[in-house]
Amino acid sequence: MIRPDHDTIVAPATASGGAIAVIRISGDEALTICDRIFRGRTPLAEAAGYTVHYGRIVEPACSGTSPDSCSTAPEPPTEERTVDDVLATVFRAPHSYTGENSVELSCHGSSYIVSEILRLLLAAGARMATPGEFTLRAYFAGKLDLSQAEAVADLIASSSRAAHALASNQMRGGYSAALDALRDRLLHLTSLLELELDFSEEDVEFADRQALQETMERIDAEIERLRDSFTLGNALKEGIPVAIVGAPNAGKSTLLNRLLNEERAIVSDIAGTTRDIIEETVNLDGIRFRFVDTAGIRTTDDRLERMGIQRTLQRIAQARIVIRLLDAAAFTGTVPPPDFDLPEGCTLLTVLNKTDLYPSLVIPQDVIGLSARNGDGIDALRRALLQTIGADSLYQGETIVSNGRHFEALSGAHDALSRALAALHSGLPADLLSEDIQQVIRFIGEITGRGVILSDEILGNIFSKFCIGK
Amino acid sequence: MIRPDHDTIVAPATASGGAIAVIRISGDEALTICDRIFRGRTPLAEAAGYTVHYGRIVEPACSGTSPDSCSTAPEPPTEERTVDDVLATVFRAPHSYTGENSVELSCHGSSYIVSEILRLLLAAGARMATPGEFTLRAYFAGKLDLSQAEAVADLIASSSRAAHALASNQMRGGYSAALDALRDRLLHLTSLLELELDFSEEDVEFADRQALQETMERIDAEIERLRDSFTLGNALKEGIPVAIVGAPNAGKSTLLNRLLNEERAIVSDIAGTTRDIIEETVNLDGIRFRFVDTAGIRTTDDRLERMGIQRTLQRIAQARIVIRLLDAAAFTGTVPPPDFDLPEGCTLLTVLNKTDLYPSLVIPQDVIGLSARNGDGIDALRRALLQTIGADSLYQGETIVSNGRHFEALSGAHDALSRALAALHSGLPADLLSEDIQQVIRFIGEITGRGVILSDEILGNIFSKFCIGK
Repeated sequence: MIRPDHDTIVAPATASGGAIAVIRISGDEALTICDRIFRGRTPLAEAAGYTVHYGRIVEPACSGTSPDSCSTAPEPPTEERTVDDVLATVFRAPHSYTGENSVELSCHGSSYIVSEILRLLLAAGARMATPGEFTLRAYFAGKLDLSQAEAVADLIASSSRAAHALASNQMRGGYSAALDALRDRLLHLTSLLELELDFSEEDVEFADRQALQETMERIDAEIERLRDSFTLGNALKEGIPVAIVGAPNAGKSTLLNRLLNEERAIVSDIAGTTRDIIEETVNLDGIRFRFVDTAGIRTTDDRLERMGIQRTLQRIAQARIVIRLLDAAAFTGTVPPPDFDLPEGCTLLTVLNKTDLYPSLVIPQDVIGLSARNGDGIDALRRALLQTIGADSLYQGETIVSNGRHFEALSGAHDALSRALAALHSGLPADLLSEDIQQVIRFIGEITGRGVILSDEILGNIFSKFCIGK
Repeated sequence: MIRPDHDTIVAPATASGGAIAVIRISGDEALTICDRIFRGRTPLAEAAGYTVHYGRIVEPACSGTSPDSCSTAPEPPTEERTVDDVLATVFRAPHSYTGENSVELSCHGSSYIVSEILRLLLAAGARMATPGEFTLRAYFAGKLDLSQAEAVADLIASSSRAAHALASNQMRGGYSAALDALRDRLLHLTSLLELELDFSEEDVEFADRQALQETMERIDAEIERLRDSFTLGNALKEGIPVAIVGAPNAGKSTLLNRLLNEERAIVSDIAGTTRDIIEETVNLDGIRFRFVDTAGIRTTDDRLERMGIQRTLQRIAQARIVIRLLDAAAFTGTVPPPDFDLPEGCTLLTVLNKTDLYPSLVIPQDVIGLSARNGDGIDALRRALLQTIGADSLYQGETIVSNGRHFEALSGAHDALSRALAALHSGLPADLLSEDIQQVIRFIGEITGRGVILSDEILGNIFSKFCIGK
């Protein structure tokens, strides 16, 4: 049963290896359970919320009631053993992350101390939290909706300004507000249609069909915009795939190094970042670009070379931007047509490298001339890359979808709304129309969890992706 | 200059990768600097100590006074950008770890968010803390003495019950109290001797030479005990080296696996633990044993085998315990004399394995019969290992030295005291005697930092071993 019964859960909230570690406890009994092992000036159960208390965590002396807690010690302690000096922060329901009574214990960052405190808390009556269980409780307490809860996990995982902005916008609830507004408008439509059904024998139309159609089309346009923003959102979250196509001596790695060196923002070094020999990740002004170095393309009978070209074409098909890198040494003055198909929605940037060696060269319009070696013209390329992405709207607070689950729900909503519009065109009766619109409402509700009852399976799926302690 | 001037320092206090991260700020301006980027209900500068405040960390809008803070953004923010929702805990001088005004910011555990908050705090007037700088400030504020400060670092690194108990005893100050008591007694001696010097023309002896000698001998015995405890303390901290000597088929790995499986305490899995092919670390009842599997010993002409035996003998020389593992299949009823020299202070445990296969075998006294395969007799071996170490005194709070610097100081103190005793025997005058005793006092003072002025170099050495944020 995934719905919380407010039993007391505990988990480490920080990674091991720091100067301090934080252990989080939440539930009806959080304060009294902590008091069994906490020795401060006053019991935490008597403390006000949002206060911090210095004290010791102790292993209680053996008593008949809890023999298990003593069995791992070399000999049963006859007096309380001090495990660590801690700071205990008290939160009182409902003014906490979970909405429950909560305690955060800040102890010395030793793996032994953390495991000992967890052991003592379990012996004192708490249980280990499952991944995301604190946020799940926050969700059920109405502290945040489902899309905001998902944004918490994204926020923790964010390692670039853009990924952070995506998660931050979503967590702050601008997205939820937009979806709620759509939902309210759809609910208004159904209520009008339901009214017609109530008066069906009188054959009145409370909902003017022309106005209805316009409203539905406007809503659908908004849903489509959100759905389509997923391509950008997902790319911003995962990194923008950029394929660099060019001959080996065109200066691809020099260009990559140049972009890397020019980078003033902090380049994240997160475990798990894909880093095979042909992919380089560069943060440009807070957006992560995944540069894929590819083999050149030309007609050939060599089987191995054909396979390499095949791979290049696959990379291009997945790219959002293709940089075609030409060598000024081999430049004739006109850009030859590309020898590959550009995928839909993909931008081609033609770049002429080594312009410093050929200062008299006339660079055609729409071509970015630069020297990867000395850095001339790199700014123009960076601007072009950033302009292509159009992430300004993100920083200006526009809602961009970056969650696959939301994309699926928005696609479902769009399909249902298309069916409703078709039904309207065909003059189908109000009840069928209303059913389609209610399906749209359900799809939108799935994103925030508002107005729908989600199965334990869906919730379990969402929260199992969280880290422990969140 | 290592002595703090109370400028405001900042550092991450938790490792990256958790659900939350904590950033620590300390210094005269800690509250006002935080307020430049913190937006809560009230400014932190107005908050009471030991209270927690919910708020947002923002990148302040660009102003003429701090253009640098905006240069990395794609475009200068015209309004405040929210970086994260945080909890800010306020500590007011002198009631904080450092004794200064301090803030702990608890934010979402994203590496991007942590680096952004650090960047904003630096732009707001803080500087990055050096390793151990918070604890250095605590030391100068008189919150803890030098040996207690060192114990903080040991406590954070502790990964077994014994290492934790060592650091914990030291941090709690029982050690310092013992040293202070010694120091007081030595100071009393010198004051008596100084009194004689003041009245030197009258040729009186305020300090009865017989009583003086007895007091000095008692003090020296205590210093020697502390110094000698270092061998155990260091072994407990680093792990007890145990060499297992026996033929390859005697069952060494089965025995190791058995010890590992029987272990009920949490086996720590800390990065940096030495784990080459011949060393296995096992926590037994909170004490870490480093088992070194060695080749058998026999007379041979084979050069390679002789080299292997040489290495085995080296391992035995470093061991604190040697387990000599005999195979019951080859057992004649009497234990052959060992074919190696046991180093001084090292304990030999003779173990007869595979007793389950030979139930009628009579096991000699002083031999531990066991079956590594089915676990019979393993408890007896574990008890023997623990008894050999004699760590009970540690858990009972006896002071055990585990710090190499302290060992050096205690050795110095012992040498100076020996010189003083020799001077006493030779009937040397009080002023020479007093000088030797003052040297003992200085050596003891070096451990806690009390009563001596330590050079920046010594302090720098001690605190540079700390992690950042502590």
